[in-house]
Amino acid sequence: MKLEKGQKLLFIGDSITDHGRSPAGENNSPYADWGEGYPSIVRGHLISFYPELGIRVVNKGTGGNQTRDLIARWDEDVMALKPDWVSILIGTNDVWRRFDAPVMTERHVSIQEYEGNMRWMIDRTLPMTKNIVLMSPYFMEPNREDPMRVAMDAEVAVCKKLAEEYGLIFVDLQAEFDRIMEHVHPMAISWDYIHPGPIGRVLIANKFLEAVGAIQTNQ
Amino acid sequence: MKLEKGQKLLFIGDSITDHGRSPAGENNSPYADWGEGYPSIVRGHLISFYPELGIRVVNKGTGGNQTRDLIARWDEDVMALKPDWVSILIGTNDVWRRFDAPVMTERHVSIQEYEGNMRWMIDRTLPMTKNIVLMSPYFMEPNREDPMRVAMDAEVAVCKKLAEEYGLIFVDLQAEFDRIMEHVHPMAISWDYIHPGPIGRVLIANKFLEAVGAIQTNQ
Amino acid sequence: MKLEKGQKLLFIGDSITDHGRSPAGENNSPYADWGEGYPSIVRGHLISFYPELGIRVVNKGTGGNQTRDLIARWDEDVMALKPDWVSILIGTNDVWRRFDAPVMTERHVSIQEYEGNMRWMIDRTLPMTKNIVLMSPYFMEPNREDPMRVAMDAEVAVCKKLAEEYGLIFVDLQAEFDRIMEHVHPMAISWDYIHPGPIGRVLIANKFLEAVGAIQTNQ
Amino acid sequence: MKLEKGQKLLFIGDSITDHGRSPAGENNSPYADWGEGYPSIVRGHLISFYPELGIRVVNKGTGGNQTRDLIARWDEDVMALKPDWVSILIGTNDVWRRFDAPVMTERHVSIQEYEGNMRWMIDRTLPMTKNIVLMSPYFMEPNREDPMRVAMDAEVAVCKKLAEEYGLIFVDLQAEFDRIMEHVHPMAISWDYIHPGPIGRVLIANKFLEAVGAIQTNQ
Amino acid sequence: MKLEKGQKLLFIGDSITDHGRSPAGENNSPYADWGEGYPSIVRGHLISFYPELGIRVVNKGTGGNQTRDLIARWDEDVMALKPDWVSILIGTNDVWRRFDAPVMTERHVSIQEYEGNMRWMIDRTLPMTKNIVLMSPYFMEPNREDPMRVAMDAEVAVCKKLAEEYGLIFVDLQAEFDRIMEHVHPMAISWDYIHPGPIGRVLIANKFLEAVGAIQTNQ
Amino acid sequence: MKLEKGQKLLFIGDSITDHGRSPAGENNSPYADWGEGYPSIVRGHLISFYPELGIRVVNKGTGGNQTRDLIARWDEDVMALKPDWVSILIGTNDVWRRFDAPVMTERHVSIQEYEGNMRWMIDRTLPMTKNIVLMSPYFMEPNREDPMRVAMDAEVAVCKKLAEEYGLIFVDLQAEFDRIMEHVHPMAISWDYIHPGPIGRVLIANKFLEAVGAIQTNQ
Amino acid sequence: MKLEKGQKLLFIGDSITDHGRSPAGENNSPYADWGEGYPSIVRGHLISFYPELGIRVVNKGTGGNQTRDLIARWDEDVMALKPDWVSILIGTNDVWRRFDAPVMTERHVSIQEYEGNMRWMIDRTLPMTKNIVLMSPYFMEPNREDPMRVAMDAEVAVCKKLAEEYGLIFVDLQAEFDRIMEHVHPMAISWDYIHPGPIGRVLIANKFLEAVGAIQTNQ
Amino acid sequence: MKLEKGQKLLFIGDSITDHGRSPAGENNSPYADWGEGYPSIVRGHLISFYPELGIRVVNKGTGGNQTRDLIARWDEDVMALKPDWVSILIGTNDVWRRFDAPVMTERHVSIQEYEGNMRWMIDRTLPMTKNIVLMSPYFMEPNREDPMRVAMDAEVAVCKKLAEEYGLIFVDLQAEFDRIMEHVHPMAISWDYIHPGPIGRVLIANKFLEAVGAIQTNQ
Repeated sequence: MKLEKGQKLLFIGDSITDHGRSPAGENNSPYADWGEGYPSIVRGHLISFYPELGIRVVNKGTGGNQTRDLIARWDEDVMALKPDWVSILIGTNDVWRRFDAPVMTERHVSIQEYEGNMRWMIDRTLPMTKNIVLMSPYFMEPNREDPMRVAMDAEVAVCKKLAEEYGLIFVDLQAEFDRIMEHVHPMAISWDYIHPGPIGRVLIANKFLEAVGAIQTNQ
Repeated sequence: MKLEKGQKLLFIGDSITDHGRSPAGENNSPYADWGEGYPSIVRGHLISFYPELGIRVVNKGTGGNQTRDLIARWDEDVMALKPDWVSILIGTNDVWRRFDAPVMTERHVSIQEYEGNMRWMIDRTLPMTKNIVLMSPYFMEPNREDPMRVAMDAEVAVCKKLAEEYGLIFVDLQAEFDRIMEHVHPMAISWDYIHPGPIGRVLIANKFLEAVGAIQTNQ
Repeated sequence: MKLEKGQKLLFIGDSITDHGRSPAGENNSPYADWGEGYPSIVRGHLISFYPELGIRVVNKGTGGNQTRDLIARWDEDVMALKPDWVSILIGTNDVWRRFDAPVMTERHVSIQEYEGNMRWMIDRTLPMTKNIVLMSPYFMEPNREDPMRVAMDAEVAVCKKLAEEYGLIFVDLQAEFDRIMEHVHPMAISWDYIHPGPIGRVLIANKFLEAVGAIQTNQ
Repeated sequence: MKLEKGQKLLFIGDSITDHGRSPAGENNSPYADWGEGYPSIVRGHLISFYPELGIRVVNKGTGGNQTRDLIARWDEDVMALKPDWVSILIGTNDVWRRFDAPVMTERHVSIQEYEGNMRWMIDRTLPMTKNIVLMSPYFMEPNREDPMRVAMDAEVAVCKKLAEEYGLIFVDLQAEFDRIMEHVHPMAISWDYIHPGPIGRVLIANKFLEAVGAIQTNQ
Repeated sequence: MKLEKGQKLLFIGDSITDHGRSPAGENNSPYADWGEGYPSIVRGHLISFYPELGIRVVNKGTGGNQTRDLIARWDEDVMALKPDWVSILIGTNDVWRRFDAPVMTERHVSIQEYEGNMRWMIDRTLPMTKNIVLMSPYFMEPNREDPMRVAMDAEVAVCKKLAEEYGLIFVDLQAEFDRIMEHVHPMAISWDYIHPGPIGRVLIANKFLEAVGAIQTNQ
Repeated sequence: MKLEKGQKLLFIGDSITDHGRSPAGENNSPYADWGEGYPSIVRGHLISFYPELGIRVVNKGTGGNQTRDLIARWDEDVMALKPDWVSILIGTNDVWRRFDAPVMTERHVSIQEYEGNMRWMIDRTLPMTKNIVLMSPYFMEPNREDPMRVAMDAEVAVCKKLAEEYGLIFVDLQAEFDRIMEHVHPMAISWDYIHPGPIGRVLIANKFLEAVGAIQTNQ
Repeated sequence: MKLEKGQKLLFIGDSITDHGRSPAGENNSPYADWGEGYPSIVRGHLISFYPELGIRVVNKGTGGNQTRDLIARWDEDVMALKPDWVSILIGTNDVWRRFDAPVMTERHVSIQEYEGNMRWMIDRTLPMTKNIVLMSPYFMEPNREDPMRVAMDAEVAVCKKLAEEYGLIFVDLQAEFDRIMEHVHPMAISWDYIHPGPIGRVLIANKFLEAVGAIQTNQ
Repeated sequence: MKLEKGQKLLFIGDSITDHGRSPAGENNSPYADWGEGYPSIVRGHLISFYPELGIRVVNKGTGGNQTRDLIARWDEDVMALKPDWVSILIGTNDVWRRFDAPVMTERHVSIQEYEGNMRWMIDRTLPMTKNIVLMSPYFMEPNREDPMRVAMDAEVAVCKKLAEEYGLIFVDLQAEFDRIMEHVHPMAISWDYIHPGPIGRVLIANKFLEAVGAIQTNQ
């Protein structure tokens, strides 16, 4: 188990991470700030199975965000909170807008910009902590020739390359969804092939927990 | 991993199991019938990590139910659906009404009736399947002298005794919450010491998954 | 233009046809019964461009319906209304449930049953009117190897075969979406690859209008 | 077909154009910004039948607007967006207020002001693009002696004159509604004789599409 | 003043009379059963200016009703309540459906049926009371050549003829709206030329009050 | 009839006048700005029976207002609008707070302050127009010894005195409600003895109309 | 203190007693069935200050009820529940309808019927328990000449007479409100002089508690 | 009875005091500003039983507040209002956050800070009034070894010590709840052991009333 006593773990990303969390400042209850997505399940496991560690989990996902948006709020939402662990799951909307809004070119993020933005975030964070987890974006389209799948695979490859280059933990979510899709059609997981729903959020949470040594699956 | 290809797993219980599921018949979408509680997390893991098995999960929890209520709907909600696995988590309200509604004696269920009702359910089900999981009720009160804790412990003991007598899988949730409460106060888990919230639901789900061999925690 | 003065045109199908129409009996206004989908656009064109014909349009789509459901309500919702034209767009959910709810086998409709059900509807209707339009189901997945696409293509083939066999008008919507997808990704049309949204409903309406000779597109 | 690859088409006007579109900035989805009126149907056709052109459609209608209001937001809502095509449908409320609010003289717009405002918009826009479409206002009152009809006809005449003078495409919607009203009473189209409803919006869309060469009706 | 101490006055009709009254049985408050239309204003005047008479006012208008619908509920809603005065304002929807829903012929009521239905109501009521007030339907279209105006005028003529034949009080609302429309456009009174709105309801109320001698206007 | 062609009539006061009107600026429809109270009924009559005059009615009532509040907004809500007629109905809350909130002395308005405030309003307005109507406040308590009735009667006397002194039209609403209460209990008019409800609003409207010569009641 | 260990205390009446309680059967929580009125305050005191007695409180008030309505549900709502104490507060609406709905004579209850109905309830109940508390109706009108006050005083006198005749506990709420009204106007207690609001409900509760010896006020 | 004619009594605290009161400024009705908690019951009693004193009650509770928050608003919410009596019930959230949000250390308030904050408030207030009532916080956990109970008991001890040191009235609510819990389980009072619910609010109100001599209970 890699997390240590008293550490703070921060998740940042788009709607996959957000998943209904309370916007900062709207809610002063300690019960309602983690949403219904994978960060809440990760937190539930860490408190249930490692109550002696007192891990603090912070969810900073925001629906619709692209890498550009994370950079704009990185100092306020990441650096200022001084987390010991930063887990990043971003890139879906960088690609998606190219395909669902092809004429809105101002909302497209190229693979070159994506890589640059990812490097910016890592470089900005490393002086604070080396505990960075990169979770790959994914697209639950099994056809690897599909152009949006091709574009997403390029982002996955960037994530993997950066994880290796910087020595970060890498969770290949695309590979996981590919494994599942050998047996069930993506429609059984998510109607839009992106939002994880009640199945995918457990997958992401448990792969994260496995990556930090908190759980073992039988795969 | 004890569940086999093509099996149907049915959860039954009270609000801890229900947790917002769609009432039968109100919803014909295959996406919205499992609620936000432990059954949904169990299902998410079984589909994510064992997609090749095609396990079918059914949630038949109903808020406020006591053992008496389960008996009244057992044939319709359990037997008629022919599940291969039946997981029962019941008893909270049998005890609770004795303490939160002390003058409403018609809503109290004694430990004797509780044991009788549990035996009735097991006896009714065994001819259909031997795969019965008993999850103990629990009360997140660390003081074992507390009278409601004493009453709940008596139900836990009944569950354990019946599991041994009939050879059923037993998940001692009270022991799990006791383990957690050595490190954090129950207020960190649940404001009313009963409803599991975003932490307890992961605990219950993952202990169930461990009990059927689908996951290993590092405890 | 094939529709004649005073004729009644009835559309039947699933949510693609329904698209928010008023359930029968809830609304006695003549302004609010056609929903927001292709039937309303077809009706708008027929009244705008052929006001002298006085065509009456009836929408009998119902969300979630499979061919089985149409048969159950065929006498009440089609035959009793004595339409001069019947346009059928059905089959999506016959296939979809096999993929999004793989363990709910009671909700799967095989290609054999699909063909049988389609024949039943045609045979039942022909003694009343020969003006039957078959609009094919479709799946906006460009990969023709995708198993759900394969299953949908089988239904399209059945529709085409039956149209030829019985001499009915056939509108190949799958071919239309395939044509579009040579230029844009399906995500630009529909997030779930099925529901037509504000773009697809115009496509379906205008292909129908072209099929009955009411419009010419420049394709 | 007059629209070319990569062009941007902007619609501006009052509630007839607006028809429920998302106010700018409230919504960051690429799926929900065109409303339910004729601009959405035009867009649906252009993407369905000319996917290779990648036309971008922008809806800038605002309910209740008079020509004065368009002038006030012209630079922000038209010029700054650099459209290749501008389609204007305005004037209804310039006339309507004179008749439905006769004592609120500050909200009346005279025919002289109307013409001046229309000239201002055209003069402002021409240096940017010559592709301006003028769609006439209309009043579904068949009695040409009706004073509000007389006032609206004066605006229609201004539109026609300006279109000829500047060489713009002109769509005479009043003539279209007059054609329909030879066969059906206006009550069959619109309860208030102004808002187009599910029939009129198709008429406006398809007449626009015909005017730019994207469709042929059989008239 | 024609109403006498202790009498009951019943208004029946369509949405013009209904105007938001509580459906029978939904509300047991004596404060909320008269709606916001002319019956409430009539009642307010009768109680304010003739408190010594103790007149009881009953509103039995129902939105959308045609003469057919009144006949169907006449015994329950009129005869059983034993009113001393019955005021009838009906016919709008008998005509309207012929024009706003021209293809729904089953909802059209001819002038012949209208007259027959009116006679039926009068004949049914006279044995109980001779105090019947006929208020004419109306259409705020000033053009008397308009076909819907022609049809409405035919109903007005029937009402007038029957009032003379049976010796009933007749209130010619069409004449009143015609008088107003010599000075203002109907758009200043009602957006759909039918529903009276905040102006028309006062007109109807005060003409009724004048007809029964409770008020004098300066006309 | 004292109002002349083209005049503007402004009503100002508290909730009795307000009665649900649209707050200024929230609504740009010419149909929804007069509320459901007596100003709307007055307006309905003036337009219905004097359409040739084109009277403009403005409602500036605001719920809860005391004379202090009117002074604070007099320049903006009265003077700036340049009305030809100003009708004032204020004072209820000046008295009411003394009785329903006896300990909140900062919200009490004495009879001396009331008179001063009324004089301020009249003096401020007279240079603009001499057509000021004072409608007295009232309390539907028939017992003239009741201390709140005594206090309200003092305000009525002030209104009457000022009307005579300045030569203004005076409408003694208290006398009217007293007349009614000789025959019916105030509970038949208003549950709280203040808000006029569907009966009192007609009384106030018709007494106003009579005072300006627009109607004759048979009293 | 007159209530004894294990007794059940039932309150019955109209909206003063009801005060928002859950309708029977809608709610199975032991926390939400007593409403916000005096029964909840009585219950709060009995449990707080006499927890050893285990008194059970049942609220059977229903808004709008007259004595007739209580008789209709007496066997089901009182006798079947076998209370040890029955507290009755009824009569307000018997009188009120005579004054707020003077023309609806079918909803008037005379003083003779009131007395008969009260006797019926007492006679029906005495064989079960002699512990009957009569709380008088009241009207917060200080003027004893007011006709509704006169009518209410007659009911108060009936209650007092019956309490003496049958030897029941009598709580003279009218006398209490009269005492308060020597110092504050009724408007400070209740805007409609009937519903007790946040002040009157404490008065009623504490006078009841004093009557059964559970509290002493310093009066 | 210690309160004197014309005095103002101010309650300040957290959600126990707040209990749904109107936020300042949102509501200008004198009927809706005290919430549903103990301050409203205290006020109801003081007005009902001491109407001649004219006591003014102000509720300044705010949900979630800790002692830190009271200090931040003390000058605006207490001193500026010049109360004659100040009743303070605070400390619950100072302790609670240590247990329900153990990792959010920035929201923990130590016993040392608690004492300092309490002294600050007393010192700040005494120059204005010596009538300060300290009501102790409490935790309805009967087990005095429970760490949150231990922490709350420390605050109770601080309150008691300060009350003695400064000569203030002290109401030991913890002792009261302990007395009740000898007979009923805390679950019968409050599901979360903190919020008083319909029982606890009466207890707090009546103990306050007893402390100021306004009531005598029979304990």
